[in-house]
Parts: sequence; structure tokens; C-alpha cells
Amino acid sequence: MFFASDNAGPVHPRVLEALTRANEGYASGYGADDLTTRTVTRIREVFEAPGAAVFFVATGTAANALALATLAQPFQTVFCTDVAHIHEDECNAPEFFTGGAKLTLVPTDDGRMTPDALRAAIEAEESRGIHGPQRGPVSITNITERGTRYTSADIAALAKVAHDHGLPVHLDGARFANALVAEGCTPAEMTWKAGVDVLSFGGTKNGLMGVEAVILFDPARAREFEYRRKRGGHLFSKHRYLTAQMAAYLEGDLWLDLARAANAANARLTRALGQLPEVDFLYETGGNMTFASWSAATHRRLFEAGAVYYLWDGTLEGAADDARLGARLVCDWSMTDDAIDRFIEVLRG
Amino acid sequence: MFFASDNAGPVHPRVLEALTRANEGYASGYGADDLTTRTVTRIREVFEAPGAAVFFVATGTAANALALATLAQPFQTVFCTDVAHIHEDECNAPEFFTGGAKLTLVPTDDGRMTPDALRAAIEAEESRGIHGPQRGPVSITNITERGTRYTSADIAALAKVAHDHGLPVHLDGARFANALVAEGCTPAEMTWKAGVDVLSFGGTKNGLMGVEAVILFDPARAREFEYRRKRGGHLFSKHRYLTAQMAAYLEGDLWLDLARAANAANARLTRALGQLPEVDFLYETGGNMTFASWSAATHRRLFEAGAVYYLWDGTLEGAADDARLGARLVCDWSMTDDAIDRFIEVLRG
Amino acid sequence: MFFASDNAGPVHPRVLEALTRANEGYASGYGADDLTTRTVTRIREVFEAPGAAVFFVATGTAANALALATLAQPFQTVFCTDVAHIHEDECNAPEFFTGGAKLTLVPTDDGRMTPDALRAAIEAEESRGIHGPQRGPVSITNITERGTRYTSADIAALAKVAHDHGLPVHLDGARFANALVAEGCTPAEMTWKAGVDVLSFGGTKNGLMGVEAVILFDPARAREFEYRRKRGGHLFSKHRYLTAQMAAYLEGDLWLDLARAANAANARLTRALGQLPEVDFLYETGGNMTFASWSAATHRRLFEAGAVYYLWDGTLEGAADDARLGARLVCDWSMTDDAIDRFIEVLRG
Amino acid sequence: MFFASDNAGPVHPRVLEALTRANEGYASGYGADDLTTRTVTRIREVFEAPGAAVFFVATGTAANALALATLAQPFQTVFCTDVAHIHEDECNAPEFFTGGAKLTLVPTDDGRMTPDALRAAIEAEESRGIHGPQRGPVSITNITERGTRYTSADIAALAKVAHDHGLPVHLDGARFANALVAEGCTPAEMTWKAGVDVLSFGGTKNGLMGVEAVILFDPARAREFEYRRKRGGHLFSKHRYLTAQMAAYLEGDLWLDLARAANAANARLTRALGQLPEVDFLYETGGNMTFASWSAATHRRLFEAGAVYYLWDGTLEGAADDARLGARLVCDWSMTDDAIDRFIEVLRG
Repeated sequence: MFFASDNAGPVHPRVLEALTRANEGYASGYGADDLTTRTVTRIREVFEAPGAAVFFVATGTAANALALATLAQPFQTVFCTDVAHIHEDECNAPEFFTGGAKLTLVPTDDGRMTPDALRAAIEAEESRGIHGPQRGPVSITNITERGTRYTSADIAALAKVAHDHGLPVHLDGARFANALVAEGCTPAEMTWKAGVDVLSFGGTKNGLMGVEAVILFDPARAREFEYRRKRGGHLFSKHRYLTAQMAAYLEGDLWLDLARAANAANARLTRALGQLPEVDFLYETGGNMTFASWSAATHRRLFEAGAVYYLWDGTLEGAADDARLGARLVCDWSMTDDAIDRFIEVLRG
Repeated sequence: MFFASDNAGPVHPRVLEALTRANEGYASGYGADDLTTRTVTRIREVFEAPGAAVFFVATGTAANALALATLAQPFQTVFCTDVAHIHEDECNAPEFFTGGAKLTLVPTDDGRMTPDALRAAIEAEESRGIHGPQRGPVSITNITERGTRYTSADIAALAKVAHDHGLPVHLDGARFANALVAEGCTPAEMTWKAGVDVLSFGGTKNGLMGVEAVILFDPARAREFEYRRKRGGHLFSKHRYLTAQMAAYLEGDLWLDLARAANAANARLTRALGQLPEVDFLYETGGNMTFASWSAATHRRLFEAGAVYYLWDGTLEGAADDARLGARLVCDWSMTDDAIDRFIEVLRG
Repeated sequence: MFFASDNAGPVHPRVLEALTRANEGYASGYGADDLTTRTVTRIREVFEAPGAAVFFVATGTAANALALATLAQPFQTVFCTDVAHIHEDECNAPEFFTGGAKLTLVPTDDGRMTPDALRAAIEAEESRGIHGPQRGPVSITNITERGTRYTSADIAALAKVAHDHGLPVHLDGARFANALVAEGCTPAEMTWKAGVDVLSFGGTKNGLMGVEAVILFDPARAREFEYRRKRGGHLFSKHRYLTAQMAAYLEGDLWLDLARAANAANARLTRALGQLPEVDFLYETGGNMTFASWSAATHRRLFEAGAVYYLWDGTLEGAADDARLGARLVCDWSMTDDAIDRFIEVLRG
Repeated sequence: MFFASDNAGPVHPRVLEALTRANEGYASGYGADDLTTRTVTRIREVFEAPGAAVFFVATGTAANALALATLAQPFQTVFCTDVAHIHEDECNAPEFFTGGAKLTLVPTDDGRMTPDALRAAIEAEESRGIHGPQRGPVSITNITERGTRYTSADIAALAKVAHDHGLPVHLDGARFANALVAEGCTPAEMTWKAGVDVLSFGGTKNGLMGVEAVILFDPARAREFEYRRKRGGHLFSKHRYLTAQMAAYLEGDLWLDLARAANAANARLTRALGQLPEVDFLYETGGNMTFASWSAATHRRLFEAGAVYYLWDGTLEGAADDARLGARLVCDWSMTDDAIDRFIEVLRG
């Protein structure tokens, strides 16, 4: 009954097998090996973007911060929601990698920014001339930090606002696969066709050990990205072990299967929760993450039974039994029906 | 006949097995798992340093730059040799992570700094008051970038110079194991007993996929290190896969066996080279890396035969047949006698 | 009729005379002159803080950013209001000088943060462990960017919240003198006695050419401040010309007289505005700055008559004659009754 | 007998008069005043560079660091001599403002780099691909930190090496006027006609209170410079007081007269020194700064007589009477014949 995060489950066995297969003899380091070349080509095919520049790093924070550093000047500000991972969960990594750019927080109800809210935030940064931070890239997350999802059309609408102001668009796709299979569109449709300029293409939360690809659909600043990756300590010498994971991920569309499994588990969970009168949902569920609330007494029962998840908006300590508290529930690809059913059973009481 | 680097060979099979063993069920992320706790304890035992703070990262550049950022203020300068990896091969990562500290280059003949040269460099930074960079940590590398080795006594002599000036000592131990088994001392003797304050304890060049430990023998700034690691994008969510590698590395002293294998291969190579009249050595050989020179014609013959290594001090293009050029030859743990013997045979002509 | 800013008026004649007096022969540079020593002593007396460290810089942004860089680590966040000068008007200088710290915006209605809002903001930064930015200094402005004023008791209440969480307090005192004479307390009462740890003590907006003092009431990090000032390019070689201005400022309490003059002018203006039915005030007036609204037609009449001030919340372009727009009106020490009376006359129509 | 620095003498009276003249009524801040516009135009005329972008700051460190930050990427290295002010005397300001770029030190005998040494340094940075720092701007100083001077032809030869490698050229002209009048060429000939892309045009060491102009002969990155100046805290609100100094400096070629006066004083000093058998010169004298050596006994006599200057290469403490020590002697515009003659008299004994 582990619903705390999709970064805590096991790696898919085919990924480990790929590591073993890659572990033969010598290979040039730093990405100058054949497997890396082939995997970059494969990503370009998957995204229908033959000219894209593609780089691998090991963490989502590295992917996001390096992408933003390539897009933003240090005297600019990055537009993101007030719950964005880059704002709340990266310990100032974007500020660090950009050399001191600011993050301007677009308010959001459910993790998604609206085009109007984005436009208002951008235009509010116009009035102070040289004194204020200058407008920089727009960064959105799909699926969002609240489990909601942008459609490709939503992304296109946001990207239009950004591009109307001459600003580039970054998509934090730590859970890109979950969003993609939920919508049923193509990778191209959710990215460059919708106006995304740079994608953090997540693997770690979807069955890899630790690999994210950064895809620059316009390769003009690719070389700069490489220098920034190196000086950030994010260029792996034994690069083939990053690539092998990503190759296995794409092979036979494993990445889509894993995301479908996670989303299906989450749908089963959400359906069952929806039938319990005690449960209220906090946000729409767009992929593999659900936010719902119930009483403190029920939370206590779940934790005693061994369930693992994060309380969202408070603490059990000192809470009255009938106090309502939110839970963040995340399903990863390895979530079992059995775990979900036991969880629901305990919750039901 | 691959002598280009010790970061290009395969990972030791026991490391892969450990990854497979670690790949069971859910584990808390970011180092909050049992295996990490146990492995940290194990490192403390290996180093006889029960109070040390220990952190894992995936690249040597990250280990060094984060260590230096924890030791240096941005208005200080780091003392290192003019061939130090942190100066020549990290694309300004130390400058980046420290927020703009400088590197003061101590001249060296063979990769090793002498206590006198270090003292002179430190004292030269004293004369300009607030206008010059302020004195910061001393960073040394063992085995050095020229394949030479400091003894523990050498390190102690350098550390004494640093400490006499109130400066902390960082040891870049990307090839720490190679140095250790060559000297035959204990990890404690080569580090904190000799005055080392922070160690980058390498694993990647010695049979791991990509793991380095940073060991702060004085844990006072451990928390700061953690924040810096996180905002550098170097805190792994699926942290157990870093730890599992390091655990396997230490288990049954695998790390020492791998370093002994690499050093032994290198000794075989060096012995054979020493018997060839054409070959001159550029530096003493301290571990698993040898620098030697021979004629351009011989280099051409080696490359044609499939040997892989770096030319050190020039290029073959346009070189006369009898022009002498240096080679950097590195043996990793997986180097075979056969490869060495073939190399020597081709070299001999 | 110039009400646009208090940084646009002339320098007080006694300041120019002091520059002329200082312009005799040679003086050691970089603050190592007698006048600087005496002026530092004088500031310590004025603030009843014999142990304070005092440094001079030429701009308010430099004073604030250097103060914050000395107080904050790059992985921390600075708590300030959402209208703070350090957030809105310094083009990311705090982010730059701190090496990438974040600013957490405490919402405010009138430029002042309340202790409850501050506490809520601080506590909201607690919940994410190592992943979020870490809590750093609290920065407040007096008088605020909306012309309102904290009393010394208000400051003490905010400082208590900060100190309860172990956080230091910075006071942006670009208009410190205006706040001080409005309350009628001592410099010590409004600063260290109220819990302020570091003060940006403004001179530029109050009759100097360009000098601010940074006062560290706890001198523990004074040396660090000096290094940061130097590497920020803010240490003046011909330092006596900064000091001479500050010496004249303090001599005979000129600084208090200038602030009284500006406040008195502003009071005259505000009184007159209060008698006009068309005028609404947007905020309380705490010193030398007033925010008020009236119709677009009236704004047009004023601008045509040569009045100079900033529209606060919109633009005249395309505004209906009866649309109401806010004005920011600032009085400097040189403001004349005549200019105020003409302004009111035109406004009255 | 003050020969310690040209930043310790008085400001020229016409500069103070200009400040007084500028101190009339209100003027828009931040450089948006008429005097600034006119002075920028005047600089363009003086440099025959109608398209140049011109900005004023108050310190040489700010001018240099902002210029380099506009020219260099953080993953690059700046080529300068090992005695460059930007390396030795700015407490890491270039590293700070560039976001962590490195300085590669070109060895020099007398403060001047040779085209060959520059080319060798640039080419040595080529061999390490993405791992090493990338080549960035070349920064030279005229007159140099050793008092020597580049001719315009020398500068052109260095600029050619830089441009052949696609690198821009920065000239640190803290003593530009001294170099210019010594050569007798035009400002254009010593700068853009010789290949200089950005000039730090010094005023502070030549009779101003504290003003330097940064001149971007190619204005393409002018806007970026403005943002960097603002976020560096180097944009003055009461900007007219910077401009007024610079306007007076240019008016009637005051700047050239002041430099001629300083150079003439230095020539008188050098001529007299050359007639003393005890004196050896350390470097050629190119402008207003001379390096010479004599015995410790003589130094002691001079200091006792009240002479002020820096010992260059050692300390008197414990020096034998006949030990030779170097002196750095700088003449500013206000140096009197009388002071020089007394100095020589004491020196002669």
C-alpha cells in the first residue's frame, strides 16, 4: 500500500536487462558511444523531430534547471505556477543554474495555469522598465503537481500567450508519459506542435533508475546546453548506462505501457474512492496521481495498517478524529490491484 | 587494447547483481532507505571515522564541485595544481558551484604539488588585502592527473601547510583506491589522519556505473552540503540504486581488489614498456596510469592495429615519422594480460 | 511640480560644500582615511551601537543586495512583501548577490506585512524538508513602498516572529529618516532595539548625491561584507567622497532636518488633497509619499500644466475622462510650498 | 611626496564646479536626463563611434566586470595577463559577474602580453573539448599594471589574434588617457580601429571622483549591459552627478590635459631617478607609473621623510640595509614638481 510517490517503486526488469546487455567491453565515454547515437535518433523519431537536440541527465531537477538556464538570462523571470516543482521542490536549482533569475508565480487553483492568468502575469512584469526582472520563459508541468492534466490544446493556448510575447516555452514532463497516454495523442502533438520549445522528458518516475532526456526542439542552443550540463556535473562519463535505460524505455513502447499501467491503477483507485461517501476529491485526476480527503480517524487507521502516503494539507498530530485531511496518492507502474483493494478496504473501515 | 580511460570499461558484475537485488518493492527516496543508512555506516567503518558525514552523488565533477562549494566562499581562491582535474576538465564547475571562487594554480612538474610550492602560492595571495581573492581550501588529487602518487606522508606535509594557514584540505580521490593499494596504507591514514578534511571518494573509475561518495570528516557543514547537493540537481530520488553500487563496492573489499587488478595490469604494461629502447617515460607511475613517449611512426602502427589511447602532447597529423609524441595509457580493472601483450607486440614492431 | 520621486531633486548645498572641503591633497583610498573612521564612529553614536560594523556604498540596490548576501545562503529564501523594492525594482540583484536565493512574497494590503502573514509565510516553507528553499532572512522596508509606515513596535513584532524562527532581520531604510522623524523615536529604537540585525541606512533619497550606509549591528560577518562589497565593484577607491557626504548628512542632524522638510511638504500636500472631494487616498500616508486617485480628466490637466508624477495603476491612453486612476506623489526635501499649492490649484480645476 | 596611487589625489576643481552646476532643480533619474544624453553623444564624437553604446558606472571594477559579463559566457574563460587588475585586484568580481567564468593567465614579463603568448594560451584551451573551459574574451590593460604601454599597433596585433579565433576584445582603460597622450594617437585609433570591442574608459584615476564609462563599440548587447548594470546595483538614481563629472572631463579636453600633467610629472621623476646610480628600473615607463629599485636603507630614509608609496617585491621588516627592494611610484594629475624634487633629494641622500 505504497502511494507516497512514483519515484519509490522498482525499476522495470527490462531496464535492468538493458544495463546488463550494455555492460560489455569498452565504450567511449560522455555520450560518444553508438548506443547513445541510436537512442537520440530514436527519440527524434518518437517525437517526429529530426532536427531536435537531445541530451540525457540523471535527475528531473537537473533536466529542468539546465533547460531553464539555457532559455533564461539571469536578469529575467520564469513564469510558472505557484505549485510548480521548479518553485517548490528544487531548493532553488533554477535560480542557481540560471545565475539568479527569478520565478514569477502564476496563481492556480488546481495546478494548471490558465492562459488569462499567464497573460496577466506576463503583462504585470512589463511596467517597471529596467528596474524589474525582465520577462523570460514560461514553464509548465504536465501532468501537474496536483495530478491534473493539460490537453495538447491547453498547452497550445498557453504557448500562444508565451510566443505572443516572444517568450519560449518549457514543459516539465516528469510525468509526460502519464499525460500522453491519458490524452491519447502523439508526443509531437503534446510538444512542439503545441508550441513547446524544450521538454524535460521524464523516465525516472516511470520505471527507470534515473534518466531524463532534455529535448531542444530548436537545436540553436544545443552546444550551450552541453557546456552547462558539463559544468553542472551532469555529464556522465559512463554515459552508456544512462542511454541503455532510455533505449529500453523506448523499445517496444515500454514507456507507454508503464504509464498506462500506472494510470490504470490510479483509475481503479479513484473509482473505488469515488464510491466511498467519506471521500472528497480535491482536484480532477489527470493521470496517475489523486488528491482526496477523509477524516483523521480514517487516516490513522490507514497508517496503522501500513499504508504509505503524504498528508497534503495538515498533520495528524492533535487532529480531532473527524477533522478532514487531504491525501496525495500516487500510483507507479508496479502498483498492484491487490494493494489498491486492501487500501480501499482499510479506508472503508 | 583500450587504454584511453578507466571510465570506459564495464561495470563489475557484482555491482549489476547488487542493482538487481536492490530492485525489490518500494523504498523511500532521496537516501531515506535502510541500505543507504547501512552503507554510510560501512564507509565510516572503512575510514575509521564514526562521526563523518557521507553523501553519494553520481559524477566526480559533482563530488568535487559540491565539496569545494561547501569549503570555499565565493570571494576566496582554491589552491590546486595547474593540471588539476577541477581546473582543466570540469568546464568551470568549481567556479559555478562556489558562486565564483577562483582557482590559484600551483605549478607542478609531475602532477604533484610540493609543500614549498603550495606555501609560496598561499603566501603570494596574502599581499593584496581586500583587493585580491582571499585564501581558500587546498585541493589535491591522488593519484594525480599525471599518474604519479602522493604517499600519506606527502599528503600530511601538504595538509600541514594548509592548516598552518587555517585552510581546509580537499582530496580529489577519483582514483583513491588505486593510490591506497599502491601504498598499502589504510583509508584513514591517507585521509583524515593525514589532515584531509573532505574526500571525493571515487567509484566510477574503479568498476561502478557512476557513484562517488563525498566524505566530510568534520560533519559541521553536512547540512549545508545536503542543500547544495539538492539545488545542484544531484540528489537522486531513487537513491537506492546509487547506494547499492557503493554497497557492492565495499562488500568483501571489492573496491580494493578492483584497484589491485588495475594497478597490476598497469605494472605489467609499464614493465614491458621499460624494456623497449624506443620508449621513454614522462612521469613516475603511481597507480594505474602511465605516460610514455615514442615515435609518431609507432603511434600510427598502434592506432592502425586498433589501440585506443590519448596522445598527450601533440597530434599525429603532419608529424614526421621520427617525431616523438607522448601517450597517456590507463588500465581499468578489466584490462586483460592479452590486450597488454598485444599492445606491446605492436609497439615493438 | 515634481512629485515623481525623491531621487530626482538636488543635493543639499552643505553636501556639496563638504565635497569641496574633502577635496584637499591626498587621502588613502578604499576607506582607509580619517574622515571615514570618524564618520563610522559618528554613525555608531547616532545609533547607540558602539560595536556595529558600518560600510558605505553608493546605491540602495547595492546596500540591500550586499546586506542580504551576507545574511542569506544561496539555498535559502528571503521573506519580503510582494511589493518590496528588493523584489520589484532591483532587476534580480538580491538573487544575483546571494548566489541564487529565492524571495518568498508575503502578501500585503498597504505595503506593510503583518506578523501573522509573516509567520504563515515562514511556516509554509517548513513542510518540504530538503526539497524546498530553506528559510532565510526577513526583509522589511520603512517607510514602505506604499508610503505607509511601521512603528518601532510594529518592527519589533515582526522581528520577534523572525527571531522565533532563528531568522535575521534586514531593514531596507531607503527612507529611514522619513520614518524616524514621523515616529519621533531614536535610531536605536527603530533598529536594533526593535530587533533589526542589518540596516540599509539611506541617504540618496534624502539629499545626498549617492550614499547609503550598511550597518551590521552584529559585526560577526563584517569581514565577509567587505569582501562581498569589493567583489561587487562597490568599494570606492576615492572613498572620501562617499564619506564626506555622509559626514555632512549627520552633521548638525541635517539628515533629520531634510526628512522633516520632506514630510512636512507631504503633509501639506496631503492635507490639501484631503479637502478635495474628487480625491481618494489609496493608503495611509506615513512619511513623504502619498498615493491618491482622481479622474483621468484631472490627470490630463495636471500633466498639461507640467506636473510630473507616476500613474500608479493604469495608463491615461484611451482612459475615459471620468475613469479614476491612482497617482504616486513623493516629496523630497527641496519641495516648495509654492509647487504644492500650484499642484493643488491645477488639480482643483 | 605621495606616489602610492593615482586614486588618492584630489578631484579637479572643474569637476566639482560641474557638480555644483548640475545641482539645479529636478532631473529624471537613472540616466534619463539631458546632460547624460549630451555626454553620451560627446563620447561618441570623441571616439568617432556614432553607433557606440555608452554607460556610466562609478568604479573600475564595476566597469570591467560588467563589460566581461556581457562578453563572456559562464562556461568560458577570459584571457588576461597574470598581473591583470581583473585577476589580482578585484576579489573575484569578474568570476562573480560572469556567473563563474574562469580567467586564463597569459604569462608576461612586463605587464604586456605578446601576440605569441596570447595565441599559445588560446590554443592550449582547445584540446579538451567540452571538458575544459571554453575560449572567451581577451582582456588587456593599457597602460598596464606594470606601467608599460601598448601602442595602438600592439593592441591591433593582439586583437587580430583574438578575432582570428572569434573572440572579442576588452580593454581595461583605467589609465586610458595616460596611454593615449603618451602615444599621441586618437581615441579611435587606440580602440575600435585597433580591434577593441569594449572599452572601460577610466576617469577616476585621472581627476574624477568616481566615474568610468563602458563603451560598447558594437551596441548589439547594449540592452543586456543595462540589465546587468541594474542588477549589479550599479545604475545610479541621481545619475546626473556621474554624468556631470564625465561632461567636465571631456569639456575642453580636460581629460587629456590631466593625463599630460600626470605623465609629465612622471617623466620628471623618471628622468631624475635615471641619474642616480643607486636606482634600477624594473620596467619601461609608458605613462604615469614607474617601477624602480634601490636599497632598503634608502627606502627607510624616504619613509621617514614622509614619502608614501608601495614596496613592490618585499618588505622592509628585517631587510639588510643594502638589500634592494622595488618601489611602485605613481603620479597623478596634481603631482607637483616640488614633491618630486624633494623625493629625489631625500633619495639621493
